[in-house]
Amino acid sequence: MASVSGKGLFISIEGPDGAGKTTQARILLEKLKSMGLQALLTREPGGTSIGEEVRKILLNPYFQEMTVSCEAFLYCAARSQLVSQVIRPSLEKGIIVISDRFVDSSIVYQGYAGGENLEMIRELNLWATGGLKPDKTFLLDLQAKKGLQRLEGKNKKEGSPGKDRMEQKDPGFHSRVREGFLQLARRDPQRFQLIDAEKPPEEVHQCIWEQVKSLLRDKKIAIIYE
Amino acid sequence: MASVSGKGLFISIEGPDGAGKTTQARILLEKLKSMGLQALLTREPGGTSIGEEVRKILLNPYFQEMTVSCEAFLYCAARSQLVSQVIRPSLEKGIIVISDRFVDSSIVYQGYAGGENLEMIRELNLWATGGLKPDKTFLLDLQAKKGLQRLEGKNKKEGSPGKDRMEQKDPGFHSRVREGFLQLARRDPQRFQLIDAEKPPEEVHQCIWEQVKSLLRDKKIAIIYE
Repeated sequence: MASVSGKGLFISIEGPDGAGKTTQARILLEKLKSMGLQALLTREPGGTSIGEEVRKILLNPYFQEMTVSCEAFLYCAARSQLVSQVIRPSLEKGIIVISDRFVDSSIVYQGYAGGENLEMIRELNLWATGGLKPDKTFLLDLQAKKGLQRLEGKNKKEGSPGKDRMEQKDPGFHSRVREGFLQLARRDPQRFQLIDAEKPPEEVHQCIWEQVKSLLRDKKIAIIYE
Repeated sequence: MASVSGKGLFISIEGPDGAGKTTQARILLEKLKSMGLQALLTREPGGTSIGEEVRKILLNPYFQEMTVSCEAFLYCAARSQLVSQVIRPSLEKGIIVISDRFVDSSIVYQGYAGGENLEMIRELNLWATGGLKPDKTFLLDLQAKKGLQRLEGKNKKEGSPGKDRMEQKDPGFHSRVREGFLQLARRDPQRFQLIDAEKPPEEVHQCIWEQVKSLLRDKKIAIIYE
């Protein structure tokens, strides 16, 4: 049972490739909807018609020559459009927005792991989002090796043609991704909630859900009785 | 006759739509090549495989919802790739690079005319180019109205399906574009060379060529005897 009031809530789900972000984002979305709450799931890069076109360029495995700087600008282009066209208007209407990745991914993938100037990445993203931050960020943490194993299993199962340009990066890159996320989480413990992504999906969901219930109550969006 | 020495030369050609930039850039390129000089023409947005994909998004007339901020990021993505992949390596090899539009177009189109924060546009472009500036910028100036008339004539002649997303902007926008370029030229008279683009193409080319000859001599690339 849920009673709705007040303004929206902005949740991002972050973590290395293969951590289960998309699965968890979808489970959370369905849970919120089943409570009668207005919720929306967006993904990055993408989430708008323009952003999905940018996504095709970013993940195209043939564009190996792409510089990290170009990559950072493309992510910001998609993000900037997503924030203006979807996230801000939805939050203003009191809708709960779940984003499968957000700014933290850029800081980690292009900055910590990609070696691009961190100050630049932060500045670009500040311009791209107008300073919008998630109320809560769930960091699904697992060893880089395990994430990549999961990804391979998933690609095989789905008969996917192969890894995209980002997934193709070397194992060292993926280790730096994990470390980068952990550093960000340590710096902002209030926003980040670290979650052990090696647990079964239902347990991971339960960890997320307990937190979301508190957020809904604190932001006076809904009081959930279960 | 030309004698070659020293490092490259970077020339940008700027101006409102319909001013004849592409025509002049091509004539200049051919002239330099006919002198036995190594020269290269790039265009913006585009100039690399990645940049040409970004160009398709930027000019797509169906993407009317694109925010000016998203537009600025996309231009910077293409530009950043172009600078790293083509312009810098070419200049280092002593090649003369002619760019059909460069940073000034972003400052004018997204900033002066588009209304986006000028400080933001400048900062993004500083990151995108690493501070690289043309040695000389030829500003082909003409009344906005005349530029648009030329463009319509050209589209009709080529059986083009119609104006792209940037060309479709209202006449007020195109007037602000012209004013923006003139302001930039006034602020940096050493780099900018203002050229009356209402003159016939051959006369415009002569004005450009006189300047380029001096640049080639000053940068010790070539001494042209005509």
